[in-house]
Amino acid sequence: MEFSIQRDYFITQLNDTLKAISPRATLPILTGIKIDATNEGIVLTGSDSEISIEITIPNQVDGQDIINVVEPGSVVLPGRFFVDIIKKLPGKEVKLSTNEQFQTLITSAHSEFNLSGLDPDQYPLLPQVSSDDALQLPVKVLKNIIAQTNFAVSTSETRPVLTGVNWLIQQNELICTATDSHRLAVRKLKLEEEIEDKNVIIPGKALAELNKIMTDSEEHIDIFFASNQVLFRVGHVNFISRLLEGHYPDTSRLFPENYEIKLGLNNSDFYHAIDRASLLAREGGNNVIKLSTGDTQIELSSTSPEIGTVKEEVTANDVEGGNLKISFNSKYMMDALKAIDNEEVEVEFFGTMKPFILKPKDDDTVTQLILPIRTY
Amino acid sequence: MEFSIQRDYFITQLNDTLKAISPRATLPILTGIKIDATNEGIVLTGSDSEISIEITIPNQVDGQDIINVVEPGSVVLPGRFFVDIIKKLPGKEVKLSTNEQFQTLITSAHSEFNLSGLDPDQYPLLPQVSSDDALQLPVKVLKNIIAQTNFAVSTSETRPVLTGVNWLIQQNELICTATDSHRLAVRKLKLEEEIEDKNVIIPGKALAELNKIMTDSEEHIDIFFASNQVLFRVGHVNFISRLLEGHYPDTSRLFPENYEIKLGLNNSDFYHAIDRASLLAREGGNNVIKLSTGDTQIELSSTSPEIGTVKEEVTANDVEGGNLKISFNSKYMMDALKAIDNEEVEVEFFGTMKPFILKPKDDDTVTQLILPIRTY
Repeated sequence: MEFSIQRDYFITQLNDTLKAISPRATLPILTGIKIDATNEGIVLTGSDSEISIEITIPNQVDGQDIINVVEPGSVVLPGRFFVDIIKKLPGKEVKLSTNEQFQTLITSAHSEFNLSGLDPDQYPLLPQVSSDDALQLPVKVLKNIIAQTNFAVSTSETRPVLTGVNWLIQQNELICTATDSHRLAVRKLKLEEEIEDKNVIIPGKALAELNKIMTDSEEHIDIFFASNQVLFRVGHVNFISRLLEGHYPDTSRLFPENYEIKLGLNNSDFYHAIDRASLLAREGGNNVIKLSTGDTQIELSSTSPEIGTVKEEVTANDVEGGNLKISFNSKYMMDALKAIDNEEVEVEFFGTMKPFILKPKDDDTVTQLILPIRTY
Repeated sequence: MEFSIQRDYFITQLNDTLKAISPRATLPILTGIKIDATNEGIVLTGSDSEISIEITIPNQVDGQDIINVVEPGSVVLPGRFFVDIIKKLPGKEVKLSTNEQFQTLITSAHSEFNLSGLDPDQYPLLPQVSSDDALQLPVKVLKNIIAQTNFAVSTSETRPVLTGVNWLIQQNELICTATDSHRLAVRKLKLEEEIEDKNVIIPGKALAELNKIMTDSEEHIDIFFASNQVLFRVGHVNFISRLLEGHYPDTSRLFPENYEIKLGLNNSDFYHAIDRASLLAREGGNNVIKLSTGDTQIELSSTSPEIGTVKEEVTANDVEGGNLKISFNSKYMMDALKAIDNEEVEVEFFGTMKPFILKPKDDDTVTQLILPIRTY
């Protein structure tokens, strides 16, 4: 294998490939980046066996020569270390050449590295996902969906299905649901094109990594589902994640009906008041904030015997219903408010011991449900 | 105690006070900030018993009212937590009032915190340093001195005196020396004013914190020495550090004479070549780089049997003397080159097993000495 490549462009693509690589890979070869040079360009592959990223660099980008492949071939080089080297090389261009023992010579200006590479045949094969039946979404919308649901997945492996986000496609509607059993986030989206019904669970960690890779320069992303894999294709990047096995719980019965009290609040005012109250709640070690409603003045408070007390007042824009005192985890509330992409938020309460619901005003596509904490 | 204060200005001063406070303070009261309100303004004090910071906030700054003291008094409030609260409060102004049990009410707009404060009489007294016989330095110069010496102090407590920088004043010259016994940094400065001879050791950690507090807005700093303390006064900030006890070793005899080889190098080219070579040296776990001279092409190399090799070439501007091969720790070399505030650096070698010296070209105020590593 022998090729030369524009260093700046190479660095960007290598950084994205690295996102799939874990320094604690169980299989040593997976700490490496696989490089395949062909006459059409170069393919970079990184994987931690849960997610894989495959980036194709064409010979030319925007009419500019990026790569010159002298001899096609493949090698696996030590991931992070190789990327650090490429970043620090002095020249605009870098040249790689590999011998039959996968010894790789990397040269740029007056700098010369000789690295022990690994046999690419030892690198695991990536799962093949058929490119039929794609779901196409605007990148912005997918980023939104991830931001509005992914934070609510469980971080505990007790119930593995809850570490993922349930993507349910039925009757041309996508319903994404995440819950850690203390709070739940739902985002709904009407689909413009006809697509087969699906019910899959995508690992939360994979969606978080995908989110980092999608740049605003790409408009659309194509999503392909296989029986136990999902492929996201955005520009020249293939992002593949395994799906979680098991049945996602039916969460629709969790939503209470007929609220007792409904508040209309300014999202930012409410968020900052909770943020302040949570300072004391966190210092006290329990994260519990109390909310009490009555008239338009909503009172938030938290008490920690050794440290002190805090009291915040927020003025509601609308109030329906009477008095209520309820306690909740401040972090869940702040996460939910951040996920509601709207200046006005509606909060529906169903009683002191029942879950309550947050929504953007006049918008049913996002619903955040939080279980209260028993303190009264 | 009762006063109100402009929140933005208060935050800046609190952040500086926090720099003296360690969350792992042995004396619990030292995790707090002491606030003294008088009719002349407010004094904030933070201390970890090694260093103390005392900031005076006057009632007016640049003709603007900053503080309004209603009732003088004192209290100690939980440091970091108190600062977090002040940062997040909603109003432009914040009001503090303390009762006789040191319960402190903090209010700003619709937000109200009630904190348990501590008795200020329990707070240790700061050492008193006489304000006679000051050494005055431009802030820029002091920042330079710290940058050129402080990195070389020892991080090990085996020989406590080496964790500090030796400040020797004799015959109106300041000589600052730091060494961890593997490398040594010296910075000399002619003093313009007459000052008594001194020989003290200032803890490296104190100088690092002082460096963070000195802003470029102040031009001069006054330095006062007491028998076991040093006070740095810059603007309205008093920074006090204890001095290290013991005798600093005489390092002047470490400097070899009559170099065998002298190189003139571009600092930045040399630095980046070593930075690259050190990638491999570090990955190999030993940090060792070899340098070999001959003609104007200087070769740097590093080898790690499992990982590979690196070879860098740097072109010297000047070469005196013949061939030499020498090995050194890449980190020490990079630290020394960073401390040499000059585009051209001179390196003097005295033999493969003797310390070598780095200096800015045509400048004797900065000297960096490094012990080689035996590899040949």
